[in-house]
Amino acid sequence: MRILGIDPGSNVTGYGVIDRASGQLVHVAHGTVRFPPRQPLALRLHHLWIALSDVLEAHRPDVAVVEQVFVAASPRSALVLGQARGVALAALGSAGLPVSEYSATAIKQTVTGGGRASKQQVARMVCRTLALERTPASDAADALAAAIAHAHAGKLTLMGAGRRGSRRSLRDLAPRQGSAR
Amino acid sequence: MRILGIDPGSNVTGYGVIDRASGQLVHVAHGTVRFPPRQPLALRLHHLWIALSDVLEAHRPDVAVVEQVFVAASPRSALVLGQARGVALAALGSAGLPVSEYSATAIKQTVTGGGRASKQQVARMVCRTLALERTPASDAADALAAAIAHAHAGKLTLMGAGRRGSRRSLRDLAPRQGSAR
Repeated sequence: MRILGIDPGSNVTGYGVIDRASGQLVHVAHGTVRFPPRQPLALRLHHLWIALSDVLEAHRPDVAVVEQVFVAASPRSALVLGQARGVALAALGSAGLPVSEYSATAIKQTVTGGGRASKQQVARMVCRTLALERTPASDAADALAAAIAHAHAGKLTLMGAGRRGSRRSLRDLAPRQGSAR
Repeated sequence: MRILGIDPGSNVTGYGVIDRASGQLVHVAHGTVRFPPRQPLALRLHHLWIALSDVLEAHRPDVAVVEQVFVAASPRSALVLGQARGVALAALGSAGLPVSEYSATAIKQTVTGGGRASKQQVARMVCRTLALERTPASDAADALAAAIAHAHAGKLTLMGAGRRGSRRSLRDLAPRQGSAR
């Protein structure tokens, strides 16, 4: 299963692609899309659409993961973030991808073991988990962390099913993971 | 000049298309895009992208107008509105359209003569200005109102230039209207 994590932001959107095969997580790609400066908003948002469409085309993920937004910020910054997030989600929708959402706390908990880890700590653990040579930029690290969290959430679901029931119920559960929302 | 007005909303997005020719405003089309219910957010947002792309393809406007968001609402509703607004703006950007923004007050002022007009009053004046047989639905009326405001803003700019200067300065101003931001 190929998992795309996305971390949409008002200036920079991070993405990260990983494969989960036989319980192993393998890094495929990561990067950031930066809004071109001094362009009208409509063109900046369209640039994000194009860039994410290119990522989808290049890596053809099976599922996508986006961090849930915990809206503690001002309405103004929520609006600006929402604009980028809407474009990212519509691009994922255009590829027909099932999209899962996890809270930042759940992602940090899975990746670092602690729900209040710093951005640096998340980036370091992403780097270690995927055996990267260099620590990725913060936005790309957050996107990879979301993808890792989804890979583990799938495993946990399977483990839960295994504990509760037979091999049969375990197998029955498997197809649902791809479209968990 | 063909003007597309857009009124993005968290559930319904209105659009309206008018032509301005020799100082006359002529209605071309209007309608609403409703989010399909019970679909994942990414698919709903992609539906909006497709629907607006169809409107752009069908009517090929020269400029687009979107109401400025006055963020008095909660961060949560600002985020949800932002998501729809981002998709609408990116769709306009994909067509390379210059996008103008006006405050709700400025739009109401232009259309009804009063900045605090009710939605019904705006819809009635849109209906009268464009000689429509039936009053459009509120979201489409707001989109048409934004388009009308832009048509008048263009005229006012020209009039201003005429008062201040020569015919030459008036002519010089004209091309700028299409890309006023």
